[in-house]
Amino acid sequence: MKALFLNCTLKPSPQPSNTDALIRKAVRLFEQEQVACEVLRLADYNIKPGTSSDEGEGDEWPRVLAKIKACQILIIGAPVWVGHLSSWGQRYIERMDSVFHEEGLVDKATGQAFTYNKVGGVLITGNEDGAHASVEQLVWAMQEQGFSIPPNANSYWVGEAGPGPSYQEAGGERHLYTNKNVRYLVYNCLHLARVLAQHPYPTNLNQLNEDAKQESDPEKES
Amino acid sequence: MKALFLNCTLKPSPQPSNTDALIRKAVRLFEQEQVACEVLRLADYNIKPGTSSDEGEGDEWPRVLAKIKACQILIIGAPVWVGHLSSWGQRYIERMDSVFHEEGLVDKATGQAFTYNKVGGVLITGNEDGAHASVEQLVWAMQEQGFSIPPNANSYWVGEAGPGPSYQEAGGERHLYTNKNVRYLVYNCLHLARVLAQHPYPTNLNQLNEDAKQESDPEKES
Amino acid sequence: MKALFLNCTLKPSPQPSNTDALIRKAVRLFEQEQVACEVLRLADYNIKPGTSSDEGEGDEWPRVLAKIKACQILIIGAPVWVGHLSSWGQRYIERMDSVFHEEGLVDKATGQAFTYNKVGGVLITGNEDGAHASVEQLVWAMQEQGFSIPPNANSYWVGEAGPGPSYQEAGGERHLYTNKNVRYLVYNCLHLARVLAQHPYPTNLNQLNEDAKQESDPEKES
Amino acid sequence: MKALFLNCTLKPSPQPSNTDALIRKAVRLFEQEQVACEVLRLADYNIKPGTSSDEGEGDEWPRVLAKIKACQILIIGAPVWVGHLSSWGQRYIERMDSVFHEEGLVDKATGQAFTYNKVGGVLITGNEDGAHASVEQLVWAMQEQGFSIPPNANSYWVGEAGPGPSYQEAGGERHLYTNKNVRYLVYNCLHLARVLAQHPYPTNLNQLNEDAKQESDPEKES
Repeated sequence: MKALFLNCTLKPSPQPSNTDALIRKAVRLFEQEQVACEVLRLADYNIKPGTSSDEGEGDEWPRVLAKIKACQILIIGAPVWVGHLSSWGQRYIERMDSVFHEEGLVDKATGQAFTYNKVGGVLITGNEDGAHASVEQLVWAMQEQGFSIPPNANSYWVGEAGPGPSYQEAGGERHLYTNKNVRYLVYNCLHLARVLAQHPYPTNLNQLNEDAKQESDPEKES
Repeated sequence: MKALFLNCTLKPSPQPSNTDALIRKAVRLFEQEQVACEVLRLADYNIKPGTSSDEGEGDEWPRVLAKIKACQILIIGAPVWVGHLSSWGQRYIERMDSVFHEEGLVDKATGQAFTYNKVGGVLITGNEDGAHASVEQLVWAMQEQGFSIPPNANSYWVGEAGPGPSYQEAGGERHLYTNKNVRYLVYNCLHLARVLAQHPYPTNLNQLNEDAKQESDPEKES
Repeated sequence: MKALFLNCTLKPSPQPSNTDALIRKAVRLFEQEQVACEVLRLADYNIKPGTSSDEGEGDEWPRVLAKIKACQILIIGAPVWVGHLSSWGQRYIERMDSVFHEEGLVDKATGQAFTYNKVGGVLITGNEDGAHASVEQLVWAMQEQGFSIPPNANSYWVGEAGPGPSYQEAGGERHLYTNKNVRYLVYNCLHLARVLAQHPYPTNLNQLNEDAKQESDPEKES
Repeated sequence: MKALFLNCTLKPSPQPSNTDALIRKAVRLFEQEQVACEVLRLADYNIKPGTSSDEGEGDEWPRVLAKIKACQILIIGAPVWVGHLSSWGQRYIERMDSVFHEEGLVDKATGQAFTYNKVGGVLITGNEDGAHASVEQLVWAMQEQGFSIPPNANSYWVGEAGPGPSYQEAGGERHLYTNKNVRYLVYNCLHLARVLAQHPYPTNLNQLNEDAKQESDPEKES
């Protein structure tokens, strides 16, 4: 069982990242359960803007995508900026758009995206307000992409209204609510990933598509 | 296996509801798979504003809540109004806030909300733009509340920018994309509900809470 | 000069409302500048669900609408519930949808909604995360409806991640950031309202509509 | 009078951009009114991730920032990707975060950000759903940053639910609703910019800050 963490911080390594500090909590918990963990920052790669799986020369998204393919649990970590998911978080979503239109990312027989039977979760930090909006954008996008989302599949820390210290400086690592939720996230993701490994979705999307065509206008093929 | 559909249309019965028309598609598919379906409109009940499970005299939310407890699959249907989830959709979320703070809605032994091992999905209609935002708000809220979300757990129809005909008038019932997605929703929800019935989450949240306290500030009890 | 405050708390009077406590700060500031203020709670009225200006028997929205018509500055106050604008906030938006489709709410000569030359602002309280999302939904809706939005047209208070005390209990009334922003809101709204009273928008939307038709498909009349 | 258009398309020049096609409509209208227009794409610049006004060697945001300083009207154009504002749109917001914490971007005497008395608007295109969410994120952010927002300060085009042709291919340039709204945007921005040029906000934020401190906890300085 492998868990991959994509940190969408604006700061490349080795700059300290508050989101990384929260990610490390989840890593320790997963590792106690013999889950192999890998953490990477999108800002350390040359992730070109675009919506395909490979934006050509120099694009390093394919390396990230290969890691997503190889994991069973994907956790997106991201900071809040001005009330919203960081631009690297939205770039993750844009690059994953390829699962909706590239045949190579879909199983020929079933029509399932490669993400089916993988489990998703979210970790957010910010100095203030915007965590719910950020979790929301990611949880929903992952479900669209093909991931399954267990209950309480997120944990976050933000401070009170307005400017102020960030997660680590503010002592957020000792914030009970966040520490509870990171545990729910880890154990629920783990259970769901194990169950789906044994009982993968049998859904044949190709067949359902044919069925859907029966009750749809013939000229529109989307 | 039971599926409950909560329609968050602004219109009480027997007024025609576009969201209802989309819900009926899912009902037919579930019934083909021997899932017992019930559809209700929040607008037909006296659902008082508030965040508890019972807002006192005349409040009919307890009747709805009893039905949510009895289902394995909960599908929220809602219209888009001015780019957002209808006010009845947000009221559903507000009333379900009780799972976060009422002991009676949580299993004493495990600390799991009553929603654990239930599966959630979303159906949205609108004459125009706002479906993603509405799905997002509901999918994320359901995950917070304790539901599990399978891949492609939503279907929606909206028309192009600006005022225009709604789902039924516009022929949305013959829109291929929507017809495909309602099928993904139904079959993925069904599989996940069956799997979780056999393999419920073993997560003991009470124990995780104790563990979390070990690395948290003692004075903060949230 | 009149300022109207619509409090979208879930709690009818005389229950204490944290949002009301923040509203009272703005009221005091406006009154120092000889602006007449009125504060009301939607929860104290029978505001029926719907998107017209009058939903028939028993509907008390028309009384609220008359007050909106009579003010120069409209401030919407609302609590955050589960990361989002309260359902009463969304109901305000739904009921104001009438400005987009009811002739009686639009000036015949210019096509301007009755809201033109009025100024809008937002006040939000919540025990935790969701203020930006709530402000955003309202600021944007008000701009759609015809209000003008000055800089820093909002103030909010929320506590840190997770459950916890609300605005008043937490001492939010002494939170510097919120106290600064409520002042920016008041003085910027006041200036913009005065300027627009002297220099109303001359925009003739009817004429622009005719112009727009010249470069649009004739069959679509939206 | 100068209007600056920042196109947040993912595609660098000279690739065709649907958002650019909508921007050009606004440009033509502004130019008829003797407003000097400049259009640029963030994707054509090396805009480093970060939240300061200058992220160091190679960062070309300072060039964009200089243009923002020089305009009276700023229009952000952006595509929708998977229901949300493009990552370049969020990057604009992140880089403008500097107005909240860099002294050089604020007038010493009044405490006003350099954006005060400038006017903001938004143009969005997407093949489907997500325009409201994208407009909302930008309108609200601009108001936070110090811009004033006139009524109907946005125009957008999206197609119906699911994959499909984009703005130009779908004939969106002949879509009446979009063509009406781009006109409202232009003429309302123009009026408000003229009025604010003559009657700038007199608000002294420094003084209001001092006043706010009187009713706030002394130890918190945010």
